[in-house]
Amino acid sequence: VAVNLRAPDAAQLHPVAGVELGVAMAGVRKANRKDLLVVRLAPGSSVAGVFTRNRFCAAPVLLAKRHLRNPVRALVVNTGNANAGTGADGLRRALAVCRALASSLGCKVGQVLPFSTGVIMEPLPDARIVAGLPQAIADLQAGNWLAAAEAIMTTDTVAKAASVQVRLSSGRATITGIAKGSGMIRPDMATMLGFVATDAKIARSALQRITKQAADASFNCITVDGDTSTNDAFMCLATGKGPVARSGKDLKAIGAALTQVAQQLAQAIVRDGEGATKFVTVRVERGRSAAECRKVAYAIAHSPLVKTAFFASDPNLGRILAAIGYAGVAGLDTSKVDLYLDEVLVAKSGGRHAGYREDQGVAAMRKPEFTVRAVLNRGKAAATVWTCDLSFDYVKINAEYRS
Amino acid sequence: VAVNLRAPDAAQLHPVAGVELGVAMAGVRKANRKDLLVVRLAPGSSVAGVFTRNRFCAAPVLLAKRHLRNPVRALVVNTGNANAGTGADGLRRALAVCRALASSLGCKVGQVLPFSTGVIMEPLPDARIVAGLPQAIADLQAGNWLAAAEAIMTTDTVAKAASVQVRLSSGRATITGIAKGSGMIRPDMATMLGFVATDAKIARSALQRITKQAADASFNCITVDGDTSTNDAFMCLATGKGPVARSGKDLKAIGAALTQVAQQLAQAIVRDGEGATKFVTVRVERGRSAAECRKVAYAIAHSPLVKTAFFASDPNLGRILAAIGYAGVAGLDTSKVDLYLDEVLVAKSGGRHAGYREDQGVAAMRKPEFTVRAVLNRGKAAATVWTCDLSFDYVKINAEYRS
Repeated sequence: VAVNLRAPDAAQLHPVAGVELGVAMAGVRKANRKDLLVVRLAPGSSVAGVFTRNRFCAAPVLLAKRHLRNPVRALVVNTGNANAGTGADGLRRALAVCRALASSLGCKVGQVLPFSTGVIMEPLPDARIVAGLPQAIADLQAGNWLAAAEAIMTTDTVAKAASVQVRLSSGRATITGIAKGSGMIRPDMATMLGFVATDAKIARSALQRITKQAADASFNCITVDGDTSTNDAFMCLATGKGPVARSGKDLKAIGAALTQVAQQLAQAIVRDGEGATKFVTVRVERGRSAAECRKVAYAIAHSPLVKTAFFASDPNLGRILAAIGYAGVAGLDTSKVDLYLDEVLVAKSGGRHAGYREDQGVAAMRKPEFTVRAVLNRGKAAATVWTCDLSFDYVKINAEYRS
Repeated sequence: VAVNLRAPDAAQLHPVAGVELGVAMAGVRKANRKDLLVVRLAPGSSVAGVFTRNRFCAAPVLLAKRHLRNPVRALVVNTGNANAGTGADGLRRALAVCRALASSLGCKVGQVLPFSTGVIMEPLPDARIVAGLPQAIADLQAGNWLAAAEAIMTTDTVAKAASVQVRLSSGRATITGIAKGSGMIRPDMATMLGFVATDAKIARSALQRITKQAADASFNCITVDGDTSTNDAFMCLATGKGPVARSGKDLKAIGAALTQVAQQLAQAIVRDGEGATKFVTVRVERGRSAAECRKVAYAIAHSPLVKTAFFASDPNLGRILAAIGYAGVAGLDTSKVDLYLDEVLVAKSGGRHAGYREDQGVAAMRKPEFTVRAVLNRGKAAATVWTCDLSFDYVKINAEYRS
């Protein structure tokens, strides 16, 4: 179902020294599915993260932000229930889960980061999660990345994981990560849930900077439906069991590798976007600022009319011009705007290009992946957003989700 | 198909002295359908209007704005082609239509206002429209409002018209109007196309003020899909053949009546929104400003997740909290937010209300019309937006539109 995306091969997901993962079926929402993940980190690990800017951020997000100040020893993630819009009661339940895990692992409650994803505004079944912890703890092992990716899925149809290795001055570092997310995807800071670990030794402040840069170049460039989740979190874990990354060059190398993994995960989320049949890159060039290019790119990527045209492979491309026009770019001179579909020049100087033939547009849009490129011709900035189409199945999935 | 909306009864649409309407089948896009409307105004009429703020506004919008400076004698409206994203060539074609009509009616080209609606970025078939003008002119009559409403439809399934009479100090004034619009509906200034006429005598400056107020209280409060059209225009025509409206009291009365007609037309557009099965009023109360209330209302009304939940009658109401949370209200304290579905208290102080039972939510949402009410509890301002759900048919219509 997903666009050019297959489940990762477990053998290609390098274990990360200092990270163990265990999963369980806790019956959070449905029976007989992996829905609980525990991650244990070696002492001395650095952890950094970015979180949703949705004001209704979930109870676990509030706790994870708070606990991030401490030396983190474990993460606990459940799917099936977001524990958002649950007020003070939600905080109590999330804390109960952290407390139980801390007690089992022999650390403090403040050293556990909780994460939840699923239905909003329903009470977290914390007792069922706590009851599932022993099974997940018994399962803890370094080679469990694929099972971990499966345990955090909601409406995802394909598990999402990526892994690379990079040479630093003192040896080879491994970076492996997982993510989930299929609907309610328009990260404002991060994605639904993304976890990337490395064995490199990185100071927390450097890791936080790299994490933010990676998020900005990956999860913060995607949208499925424009809905910013209450539970977005992207976490980077550096165990320090491998090579040290301290020099500018090493940090640059590890940052680039981490961004590569994050982009692969972020694009996987769009490829598996709810109902997606097309993976579309929206590139806006020659704007005055990256911010205005992003505005235009998101206007295109969020327009239901543009997205249904993508679905139909119908080059009804005037809808893209309309979206550019209402994106809110002050003083935009539309008579300077050019529009391309892959290499096909569709609109020139704000109007249909004389040489454009509709069969060219159809040919480009029939492909499962293509690029919409808008050239504003008023500056030197650019931005890219990855998105998908709006299909019958998006409506079906979201009209039937929960039932 | 439309939600609690039937085609108007021609007998209930009062003719407006000084206004004649004529329609034709010009074959703009499809054969054998009314697609051309000519409106002739008595000399001395006042005309006011508000237009889209989409930067890619259509050629006819540019011309209509320019010609509005002159004493207007006629309007010409075609459906099937928006003449937007068509550059200088689009202006030439729109002007050719104005010129032909002016010549037939014996007025100047600058006294004709052109309007177009339909597919964007395709050349206007001006020759076919010009060839259709004699048929429309031969059809000119005061009792033609229903035919006029039919002649401007695109994906509309029901013709939209409304008519009221109001007593002024010097006699009874009539107000009759038509509108069209079904998709690409998120007016930023006005709707797709709305035309309201009155026989009252109103100075142009007063008419412009009343028109803006009526638009703000009607077309500027609706959304179907969040896409602001390139062709939005809402025009008010005052022929002066009936009672004079000059006193503050008369102007207030006529303004209220005009707003009533405009609201009826605007709500009809939402009821007939593409694929709509629900008509939903989103009311946001106790915000700090009307602007922030509108932000929240539109975030709810535009969320594809909220709209598909409406479609499914599934009270997955956490999605509404999520939309409130990302609406961009700085400093919003979510622990003060209450949420109602009609009279049912769903969330209290930012979390699920203890007394809320899901069957209450289902009962409210199963109705074809209901109200979502969010109470921010941080000020005294409020705003209302009317919207519809997102259904399979929205995708179907927009994936197949044009074919």
